[in-house]
Amino acid sequence: MSPLAASAQTFRAVDLIRKKRDGGELSQPEIEWLIGAYTRGEIPDYQVSAWLMAVVLRGMTRPETAALTDAMLRSGEVLDLSSLAARKVDKHSTGGVGDKTSLVLAPVVAAAGLAVPMISGRGLGHTGGTLDKLESIPGFDVNLEVSQFRHVLETCGCAMIGQTAEIAPADRELYALRDVTGTVESPYLICASIMSKKLAEGIDALVLDVKTGSGAFMKSEKDAAFLAELMVETGERMGKKVIALITDMDQPLGNMIGNALEVVEVVEVLRGAGPEDLRTLCHELAGWMLQLGGASKTVAEGREQSKKLIASGKALEKFRQMVELQGGDPHAIDDVKGLPRTRQTMVISSPADGYLASLQCEQIGTACVILGGGRERKEDSVDPAVGIVLHKKVGDRVSIGEPLATIHYNAEAQANRAQQLLTRSFQIADSPPEKRPLIHRMIGKSGEKN
Amino acid sequence: MSPLAASAQTFRAVDLIRKKRDGGELSQPEIEWLIGAYTRGEIPDYQVSAWLMAVVLRGMTRPETAALTDAMLRSGEVLDLSSLAARKVDKHSTGGVGDKTSLVLAPVVAAAGLAVPMISGRGLGHTGGTLDKLESIPGFDVNLEVSQFRHVLETCGCAMIGQTAEIAPADRELYALRDVTGTVESPYLICASIMSKKLAEGIDALVLDVKTGSGAFMKSEKDAAFLAELMVETGERMGKKVIALITDMDQPLGNMIGNALEVVEVVEVLRGAGPEDLRTLCHELAGWMLQLGGASKTVAEGREQSKKLIASGKALEKFRQMVELQGGDPHAIDDVKGLPRTRQTMVISSPADGYLASLQCEQIGTACVILGGGRERKEDSVDPAVGIVLHKKVGDRVSIGEPLATIHYNAEAQANRAQQLLTRSFQIADSPPEKRPLIHRMIGKSGEKN
Repeated sequence: MSPLAASAQTFRAVDLIRKKRDGGELSQPEIEWLIGAYTRGEIPDYQVSAWLMAVVLRGMTRPETAALTDAMLRSGEVLDLSSLAARKVDKHSTGGVGDKTSLVLAPVVAAAGLAVPMISGRGLGHTGGTLDKLESIPGFDVNLEVSQFRHVLETCGCAMIGQTAEIAPADRELYALRDVTGTVESPYLICASIMSKKLAEGIDALVLDVKTGSGAFMKSEKDAAFLAELMVETGERMGKKVIALITDMDQPLGNMIGNALEVVEVVEVLRGAGPEDLRTLCHELAGWMLQLGGASKTVAEGREQSKKLIASGKALEKFRQMVELQGGDPHAIDDVKGLPRTRQTMVISSPADGYLASLQCEQIGTACVILGGGRERKEDSVDPAVGIVLHKKVGDRVSIGEPLATIHYNAEAQANRAQQLLTRSFQIADSPPEKRPLIHRMIGKSGEKN
Repeated sequence: MSPLAASAQTFRAVDLIRKKRDGGELSQPEIEWLIGAYTRGEIPDYQVSAWLMAVVLRGMTRPETAALTDAMLRSGEVLDLSSLAARKVDKHSTGGVGDKTSLVLAPVVAAAGLAVPMISGRGLGHTGGTLDKLESIPGFDVNLEVSQFRHVLETCGCAMIGQTAEIAPADRELYALRDVTGTVESPYLICASIMSKKLAEGIDALVLDVKTGSGAFMKSEKDAAFLAELMVETGERMGKKVIALITDMDQPLGNMIGNALEVVEVVEVLRGAGPEDLRTLCHELAGWMLQLGGASKTVAEGREQSKKLIASGKALEKFRQMVELQGGDPHAIDDVKGLPRTRQTMVISSPADGYLASLQCEQIGTACVILGGGRERKEDSVDPAVGIVLHKKVGDRVSIGEPLATIHYNAEAQANRAQQLLTRSFQIADSPPEKRPLIHRMIGKSGEKN
């Protein structure tokens, strides 16, 4: 794959817009030209936004989606990690509330001998971001140069950074345009955005965690599965091993929501404790990463290996090493009291006896943003200490007056707004709700021989 | 109606884009804000183009179309012609080949005592433009100030000018954006563009001539009727008397195509001669204009009045007066040899005996553009003298070697290209084709009591 150069074949943007508008299929050279010319500043935003809206409403074929992903990928640098002997594996989640699995998975999979070159994002809307969580560790630097990133990866097997200017610049420009033109919500554009960035990491295999439920961007399982299939097929067309798990985001994952709080929970899991849903999902995702990366024959074997690497303390040691290599204070991992903490807390108690019937997941994510744990606007800074600790999860028995959650806050006014929202997020019922599975289904070819 | 001022109520452009994208209906204040803010430069092109594409693919409701028309109309000046005692009536055609009816209708209707404040356009694609035709009359000025326009109108009852900077500026900006973003082809946007400009003329009634057939923008009668209904309803919602005739554009109207040639044919019609299809359509449109404007009780009566005004020479006198008032040389009307003429002509002869089965109307229009009679690019200048004279129309008996058309040209190379295209435009068959009606149907409320 060579970077996108000014191609000999040129087109008229308006003709490509009209073709998509009328439901036609753009050819690979047409898409390559459009993305290349846009990235080089040769096509104005107003033509690309019209084309994006036509894509949102007309959709794309699988070859078009792959061509778009490829063109976006090749708009910048593709990391060459061929000097690393280990197979390179990554995981990507479509975003959720309390989803801190990346911080557990990178050290677990590295401890098994694979390399995890993870390029992550920041919080978006009501969902948290891996970079914000990592930055709550004092000193942790997510803005490494590619050479430093490579050094950390070679030394400890995993490294976690933010997107660099060199990687998929077309995606950055397109995303900024989509954000202000109502063209975010297209599975084809979401697929190309995610896959172009992930495949630019130079990985061999990728496990996708596509969330579904009230806290996910894809509320329905049908939409989640459609996106998952699109991403898996796109990855396969580009010669990568890719599978997707559709997992539940109808309530937050784990008990802690908020940047430093989530690191606390990550350390708990790496110490062999932590909430069951989070542990289960981490072992499942790790199992798939290890199997696809060739470190285990089967997913079940990978899952067991994950458990052993945590029980032995090797995964925690890997995490500590990565934190230290990226400039973070490892003592904050040894004793999580070294992580940022709020001055105050506030308890939300159950208004009734019964069962916790549902947790409005998006509202809980929004409450965390209100506390300062996420961004209402791009330029906002994040308070690493604030967040919410859940004491009850869906299906739990609750008594009147019993604590449901604790708000960790630094500003009274924000705490009051968050409290109002949270209070409405807990539904108490007389009987327990029907249990939703944590892992809905797998999409892709497992590669396992039965 | 007051001009669009910065409204107290503001919206976020991205929310309005998303609403239309999802098939929702925008409210009148939302549309008013969008168009107003765009015209004031407060919303970037890339948001408006995404919204336009959503409109193309999702459509608009009738109230939305009326709100858009109203907002575009009020983006600029609305002519106040209330000082004129006469009722103000106009006609608008969606564009065709050889359609010179405006030049006949304005003087006929003015001669009947109504006022015709006609603001017209230039040639677009393969279709001719009224302004280009008028400018072939030596000295004729289509760029009058509003005060001069009013003076001509008050003096002779009709005046014909181009769009001024003050009238519907939102349409000019939107049209330029639509042209490069594949968002021209939407009946809702076409309706708002036409109706906003026409209603800014301060008229009481409007007759729409919506063309259908191979030379029209709306090839199918269904599409033409849909656009016609939309425009009629939009005009009625805005308190105007509006009807539409769906008329045939499967072959050129009349025998002459080209700017000065069409003026020659207009003078023929005003002298009571000229080709039958052109005369029939002029009387039909005049009948409706006179009836809607209150100068005749019925359309039939209006039609008769139109014939009488031509037979008496009053309409020709009105035309001569308007030409003189707008700086044109009236002797070019008295003797059309004073109009621009080409240095050369070339005859196309029939290759066979039989009947003229069809005339590829769009190709004939394109041939005229190739000769220099229209514009391939906006900035091109137009040669007023060139054009095509048809000697046969669809259904006519032809003999081998008999002249089908004469090309009037100034440049050999262009003539050869036009000849090739024209030769392919004539289909000769053994039997006469089925006759297409000139006037397909009327859309709207006639207002006549039966």
